Amino acid sequence: MTIKIYGYIRSPYVMAVGLTVYEKDQDFELLMMDMKSPEYRSNFNPFGMVPSYQDEDTTLFESKAIMRYVATKFADQGTPLLGSTIVEQALCNQWLEVHSHNLVSPLVETAMALIQNPPQPDVLKPALEKLNSVLDIYDARLSASKYLAGDSYTLADVTHTPFFHILNAITVDETQKCITSRPHLHAWIQDISSRPAWKKLIANPEIKDYNFRQGVKK
Amino acid sequence: MTIKIYGYIRSPYVMAVGLTVYEKDQDFELLMMDMKSPEYRSNFNPFGMVPSYQDEDTTLFESKAIMRYVATKFADQGTPLLGSTIVEQALCNQWLEVHSHNLVSPLVETAMALIQNPPQPDVLKPALEKLNSVLDIYDARLSASKYLAGDSYTLADVTHTPFFHILNAITVDETQKCITSRPHLHAWIQDISSRPAWKKLIANPEIKDYNFRQGVKK
Repeated sequence: MTIKIYGYIRSPYVMAVGLTVYEKDQDFELLMMDMKSPEYRSNFNPFGMVPSYQDEDTTLFESKAIMRYVATKFADQGTPLLGSTIVEQALCNQWLEVHSHNLVSPLVETAMALIQNPPQPDVLKPALEKLNSVLDIYDARLSASKYLAGDSYTLADVTHTPFFHILNAITVDETQKCITSRPHLHAWIQDISSRPAWKKLIANPEIKDYNFRQGVKK
Repeated sequence: MTIKIYGYIRSPYVMAVGLTVYEKDQDFELLMMDMKSPEYRSNFNPFGMVPSYQDEDTTLFESKAIMRYVATKFADQGTPLLGSTIVEQALCNQWLEVHSHNLVSPLVETAMALIQNPPQPDVLKPALEKLNSVLDIYDARLSASKYLAGDSYTLADVTHTPFFHILNAITVDETQKCITSRPHLHAWIQDISSRPAWKKLIANPEIKDYNFRQGVKK
């Protein structure tokens, strides 16, 4: 049975699951369903969110749980994604939590402020300040190790890739420097964004031909 | 080296880590440090939150990452906590995420509203409505399996135990029924709250002799 992912591909959470599947040399079928429908809620996710996942063995929701499952199920195929030691595995888990609890909120607030037309500096400024203080911590971490969990690329890196891709797609010169002024963060984003599995994912016309800043097809 | 946990024991996140350690038949030393100090931030958690964890091999933060590490490191001791199959492991991870993303916010909002003096029904009512709709989903899940991930007690159950303990400690008759009216949820809370490791943890005078409702020692 093919892996089925329910969701829209431009959701960074759906992208993170798709990237995990590609890094494990697997393929998936992307399906849409009305997330608020009783059918979706009873068969996939009672909370009515994307992504959901289905294969011959199970149905799952919550992107990070799906990513861990795919990385474990296909442990011997593609890129190892769980960390090569128990400590690296722990740091992978730590940075997956940091992504949820510390990065997403200021990054999304900044992104939402950036796409406002006309621009609203009083919304952007505090969001960007909060994001910058979090990115300082990322830059410090990435000055000590090549990837978030250590020497190996793991799910912790996977989960960040689409979020920085979207931020990058909508930033202007002024905000672009929140990345470029931090050398370790900048090098890491370039590294994780150049992986073949990621290039394959964003070759999808729904991503490639989409203007994230204006919210329309190019 | 003894396991060291940094934090205050009445934090439900610290309790969840302590419970994990006890379920694995290990012991820990609880230490306090000014979370906002440069020393704590540089040595333990750059985001200045509790709990942090230290043993001879590593220093970690983020409670769920610490819990997974302890459960993996002491895999052969005490209670297995990671799920007995790859699917049960995935469901454990899924419900750990549900705890973070769906339960904590309405539960904490409800708890905060309950301890307000004088009571503010306009704050309590919407929080309780949101909590009730989430608890419906828990009750449905727990009608299908004894524990959140399946037949086995796992970290998914561990992480919920202190949150329901605190909610229970501060609810009044009127709100108590959000638990008691849901038979599967109610039975599960009674089950996970009767485990020896949990009884040992809450025998700590800092928990046992504390009135969570009034925020003072009994």
